[in-house]
Amino acid sequence: MTRPPGFTGSRVDRADHLRNAPERVAELAASLRARLLRLSGLDPMLDEKGGLGWGSLAEPGEGAELIFLGLDGETPLFAPLTLIRARPNPRAVFGLLETLAPEDAALWGTARSLIEWHNRHRFCANCGTATALFRAGWGRSCPGCQAEHFPRVDPVVIMLAEHDGRVLLGRQPLYPPGRYSALAGFVEPGESIEEAVARELFEEAGIRASNVRYVASQPWPFPGSLMIACIADAASDALTLDANELEDAFWADRAGVIAALAGDADAPFVAPPHFAIAHTLLTHWVAAA
Amino acid sequence: MTRPPGFTGSRVDRADHLRNAPERVAELAASLRARLLRLSGLDPMLDEKGGLGWGSLAEPGEGAELIFLGLDGETPLFAPLTLIRARPNPRAVFGLLETLAPEDAALWGTARSLIEWHNRHRFCANCGTATALFRAGWGRSCPGCQAEHFPRVDPVVIMLAEHDGRVLLGRQPLYPPGRYSALAGFVEPGESIEEAVARELFEEAGIRASNVRYVASQPWPFPGSLMIACIADAASDALTLDANELEDAFWADRAGVIAALAGDADAPFVAPPHFAIAHTLLTHWVAAA
Repeated sequence: MTRPPGFTGSRVDRADHLRNAPERVAELAASLRARLLRLSGLDPMLDEKGGLGWGSLAEPGEGAELIFLGLDGETPLFAPLTLIRARPNPRAVFGLLETLAPEDAALWGTARSLIEWHNRHRFCANCGTATALFRAGWGRSCPGCQAEHFPRVDPVVIMLAEHDGRVLLGRQPLYPPGRYSALAGFVEPGESIEEAVARELFEEAGIRASNVRYVASQPWPFPGSLMIACIADAASDALTLDANELEDAFWADRAGVIAALAGDADAPFVAPPHFAIAHTLLTHWVAAA
Repeated sequence: MTRPPGFTGSRVDRADHLRNAPERVAELAASLRARLLRLSGLDPMLDEKGGLGWGSLAEPGEGAELIFLGLDGETPLFAPLTLIRARPNPRAVFGLLETLAPEDAALWGTARSLIEWHNRHRFCANCGTATALFRAGWGRSCPGCQAEHFPRVDPVVIMLAEHDGRVLLGRQPLYPPGRYSALAGFVEPGESIEEAVARELFEEAGIRASNVRYVASQPWPFPGSLMIACIADAASDALTLDANELEDAFWADRAGVIAALAGDADAPFVAPPHFAIAHTLLTHWVAAA
């Protein structure tokens, strides 16, 4: 694989051992070296070089709570726990992600996942009491029942079914024009990755799959998935589409996938963006075929 | 790999398309064929053959809510949403799991994860209102803010660091006497599987890891993890243990792992049980070495 999956490659040390030491984190936040991620809503504000914009903690803005992202060498990095007023549209930021450096995308994605999780988890699921940020932003604790809550990461399988040298691509109604991608779905309680791949391919496309092979993974910060990319063998190429999930699907051959990844105008479909692991998966399949 | 990972291999069709059709599920629950998983607390009650015990829905007990597990051929299977009064000790059921058939363990594990999730998520994390079961037990909905909540699955990496033909095994304080196992930790927001493996090995043991290879996965119903098993190369065998996580750790050679997996009395450690993916991982490593 030539390019690592999107949203990976952060060089920041998460410094987990500091999260339980609030006085140490407060010291770091008070130091002149500390930097605060600049956001517009949940989206990054870029500096003049096109990298993530960082501000000082001397002016903490509206008194927002802080999330400790970790240490970049000697530099403590924080993100503000912005209050989300409107439900953000993830696709609004996709244009910006086309050019953001991988390590910047990884760090911003971490902050985005955490901020959105805090916003949606202000109350204790166990007893209904309002919770408070703890562990330097990596959890919330309940003053009512003492439950501790940790940021949710939802595992999602995303997969290419392969048959006779072609792979199955599907289209969801919300995709941009011409876009097709790998099928995907949440891993449910009580199933392995391999079982989730087989179940989703059958539910969405009527495909009986076997020989599931893991390829790669990425965090996907919309809002907080762990994408687990696989390839599986399809027993047949007959499709029975679930119209609730897919608007269309087709089997793409190697030449078609190569053309789409190259962005050719006459490619049979528009490929997913480079920062989506479906792109990684298609690139891997083309190279391995 | 000779034996599939524990808690996999259920032959039950989850029948996702029925979950959004409450009248269909009610019909299935009312049918004479429907069966209700028999539980004692969260643990399975076995039948005379040592398989999962099933009762009739004609006597639904204390009016418990139902979780639709799916269809076993023509047979609709349900689990009762038992109320958990005391925090269950997972290890109490480990003896029983030694002999439970894999497909039974998989089905029971699914039910256990769902029941425990419902018990701990009776209130809306978004607004604090009491929520109600929906989607036939595969979610909860909020009458206050209309948020929909879905069962949580926490991805966990579990890994063998490999160095010079040996693998790193650690011991947590709560383990039974002599038990050592693969190191493990939760995947955090903003990291891939491969990054989580590297971070955990460094945090827990001071190991710099590279070349992370995926091996296998399993659902782990205590209470609801997705275990993702990997092997990685360690740059050195020098250990710096995090005493909060590990009581001890050592490098096991192939002969030692083979002896432990065989249950030899003079093995250098007691292996994890066959239904834990650490057992799968060690078996895979021995076979591949």
